[in-house]
Amino acid sequence: MLYNSALLNSPDTIAAVSTPHGQGGIAVIRISGKDAFDVCKKIFKPAKASVSFPAEGQKNANIIFGRIYRGEEILDEILISTFLAPHSYTGENMVEISCHGSLYIQQEIIKLLLANGCRLAKAGEFTQRAFFNGKLDLSQAEAVGDLIAASSAMSHRVAMQQMRKGFKHELATLRDQLLNFTSLIELELDFSDEDVEFADRVQLKDLAQQIAAAIRRLVDSFAVGNAIKNGIPVAIVGETNAGKSTLLNRLLKEERAIVSEIHGTTRDAIEDTVIIDGLMFRFIDTAGIRETYNTIEQLGIERSFQKIEQSSIVLWVIDLTNDTQKTDQLAKQIISRAESKKLILTLNKADKITCEELKAKIEYYKLFHEDYIVISAKSAADVATLERKLIETANIPQIGENDVIVTNLRHYGALAKALTAIERVIEGLDTNISGDLLSQDIRECLSFLNEITGQQISTEDVLGNIFSRFCVGK
Amino acid sequence: MLYNSALLNSPDTIAAVSTPHGQGGIAVIRISGKDAFDVCKKIFKPAKASVSFPAEGQKNANIIFGRIYRGEEILDEILISTFLAPHSYTGENMVEISCHGSLYIQQEIIKLLLANGCRLAKAGEFTQRAFFNGKLDLSQAEAVGDLIAASSAMSHRVAMQQMRKGFKHELATLRDQLLNFTSLIELELDFSDEDVEFADRVQLKDLAQQIAAAIRRLVDSFAVGNAIKNGIPVAIVGETNAGKSTLLNRLLKEERAIVSEIHGTTRDAIEDTVIIDGLMFRFIDTAGIRETYNTIEQLGIERSFQKIEQSSIVLWVIDLTNDTQKTDQLAKQIISRAESKKLILTLNKADKITCEELKAKIEYYKLFHEDYIVISAKSAADVATLERKLIETANIPQIGENDVIVTNLRHYGALAKALTAIERVIEGLDTNISGDLLSQDIRECLSFLNEITGQQISTEDVLGNIFSRFCVGK
Repeated sequence: MLYNSALLNSPDTIAAVSTPHGQGGIAVIRISGKDAFDVCKKIFKPAKASVSFPAEGQKNANIIFGRIYRGEEILDEILISTFLAPHSYTGENMVEISCHGSLYIQQEIIKLLLANGCRLAKAGEFTQRAFFNGKLDLSQAEAVGDLIAASSAMSHRVAMQQMRKGFKHELATLRDQLLNFTSLIELELDFSDEDVEFADRVQLKDLAQQIAAAIRRLVDSFAVGNAIKNGIPVAIVGETNAGKSTLLNRLLKEERAIVSEIHGTTRDAIEDTVIIDGLMFRFIDTAGIRETYNTIEQLGIERSFQKIEQSSIVLWVIDLTNDTQKTDQLAKQIISRAESKKLILTLNKADKITCEELKAKIEYYKLFHEDYIVISAKSAADVATLERKLIETANIPQIGENDVIVTNLRHYGALAKALTAIERVIEGLDTNISGDLLSQDIRECLSFLNEITGQQISTEDVLGNIFSRFCVGK
Repeated sequence: MLYNSALLNSPDTIAAVSTPHGQGGIAVIRISGKDAFDVCKKIFKPAKASVSFPAEGQKNANIIFGRIYRGEEILDEILISTFLAPHSYTGENMVEISCHGSLYIQQEIIKLLLANGCRLAKAGEFTQRAFFNGKLDLSQAEAVGDLIAASSAMSHRVAMQQMRKGFKHELATLRDQLLNFTSLIELELDFSDEDVEFADRVQLKDLAQQIAAAIRRLVDSFAVGNAIKNGIPVAIVGETNAGKSTLLNRLLKEERAIVSEIHGTTRDAIEDTVIIDGLMFRFIDTAGIRETYNTIEQLGIERSFQKIEQSSIVLWVIDLTNDTQKTDQLAKQIISRAESKKLILTLNKADKITCEELKAKIEYYKLFHEDYIVISAKSAADVATLERKLIETANIPQIGENDVIVTNLRHYGALAKALTAIERVIEGLDTNISGDLLSQDIRECLSFLNEITGQQISTEDVLGNIFSRFCVGK
């Protein structure tokens, strides 16, 4: 499926650094377009005189060792990988330059490429070309962006499935049947004087119901997909000394250690997200509620309560060593504000009180809220208990190999509109509306479905918007 | 030249992310060691069933498209490049995995590799193996690190020359002749009863003088090499409103624009270094000297003066719109403190005064110091004037294709010691010292020279220290 031959035949050869920005052992610069080999030939010479570049009668993919020249000066000793169109990521001729990872070298090679006929690639332009050249449909191309941004096992899995399969398998057959029906209905319109019915209305209704069910399943999956992609928002509320920070730090600790071990660097302040069992939880910072003698400062509490609105899970952390009476007023407010949320009462510092005291306190707090856990934030085992509780409360279903989960707001929007349209078709069949109105609703449904895979996109703006969210170099 | 066969036959297969840390379009993970192919085989399957990996009878370098599996699950769709020993960077079997650039994927692939028999590479370990396997001598290996860190054209050129040629060409022949002489002298010692002289003392002295001259040239080049590698330190001093910040910002501006254009990102606070004509200048921040009515706060000025000590060029910025008399006291102090430095009087805001005033002021300031320029920091042309002045004052010679410049403190130290030893040889020849003392000095000189190329290294600690400064993955 070729989208736009005008753009496809674009004479531009593009280049960009594709590896993360910064200094490293090596960096990779990608070049794509019909002149990719010719541009490289101007600045690159193979180390072995016997090797010619681009190789005559070459294989689809080749690696050549050689040097980048800036005039007479050797700028770097590098490896290049060459990919012959259409056997490349973009479907065009491509070269990947694997150079030493200094910022200076990356910058100078880019400058040389620009001086020799390339232009700087826009964000996402390599993937956009892959889409134009029919290597990926639009939903698959979008999944490439999601895949790169994915930071948990679940969000990664969902993006990988979408990148590999898109929505094709889920909708293609049903859509083709629908298209077939609408053609028959439109044929009826040509013979409108004769009152014929080429399209079997009973079969059509059956199909429309199947499609509505399939779309509804996808629309419903967005709640899960969104939680997987963006993380499940968790508000931790409680009084200042209840142990919120200790708890959060314990949860964050494991994750950070792995990352820094692998990259050998200390990361700067990272967002307060924790990945538990492959699922991302996003912690919303709430200011500790200050204790005063008997009353609680209403302003501080109000701010924390506003954060509760943004969450789907609320961890209400209670310091078991505190006097229970102080909690009464706060308890009533938290419970009323978190009514529509999943509230977990987190009874903390259990190690600091006696067994008898603990028993009494659990009885007391159970009156407020049934869903509770007892922990000590300093015990690793108890942190694991909380993690299990979070996973259980999030209640995200297992994603199978073939499940399609909608994670993209654009797809969700298009699917919701397609659903409305197909529901009108079903309603129209029930009320025997005329063929032309029926056909119009079916066409609308198809149009929204096509938007997802990019077979039909309203404007260049939509595409621009999709790919501009990519990083440069992909 | 194989350094250490025990380490060379190390059974470890190592892996690391070689591209800069972070999220990008793609990332490259390197694997090196005799099991590199076997480890990859466990987690990678070629997309085409007809392709076998590792390929039987394969070429030295191959690219294969396929998938990384974590158990049954597809973790990523990737390209791998395979390199057969000894035709690789390290000289061992190597695989480069070019994966999607999410941190999650990078981390998970590393985890899979570790679970399947790799260990995490230490900083610089790939280059260290290249050294052990005789792909590079030690000074060349060190230059790889310098090359990656190089941020200006000059430091890049010097590192590139050292990486490509090392010190081999500069010293090899002379060193071999010296080795030959010392063997002859040692032979004399075996025949000491007979009073023979196998080694011609006149020829030896001639050679020793040649070697001393060659080493001295290298030792002297360190001043230039160090300035090129670490930047030329420039202190900007002056009163608070003299226009120091405006001047510095103008100098920094051009540079930043290029960097951000290429990478499509706004960089965070960068160090105050400016690259002019490929040469790096490092600006040392000095607090503005506060004006009071007539006296100048001595404490503030003292701090700025201490910064002058660290610089080699001092820009003394003077606001031409100010009353000259106020400057008198400051002038005397600056001139006395900057006596051993290259001082440039920078008469700023020339656009704000009349021609007559300017003429008078130049006459006045020339009395203090002869080397001055007149600028307006707001004029781009005037900033260029200052840049030319800085380049001229730095007075760094052009580096030719074959010039060897010492930039490494370790090399400088070894060369300085080798020079002392060879000078003792010359002195010994003049005073007719005994053959055994002569031989000892020659051996010492050779030993220091060998330290540079790594043919002789005192301890494992020295090597560890050298490679630990590399980034992981190189």
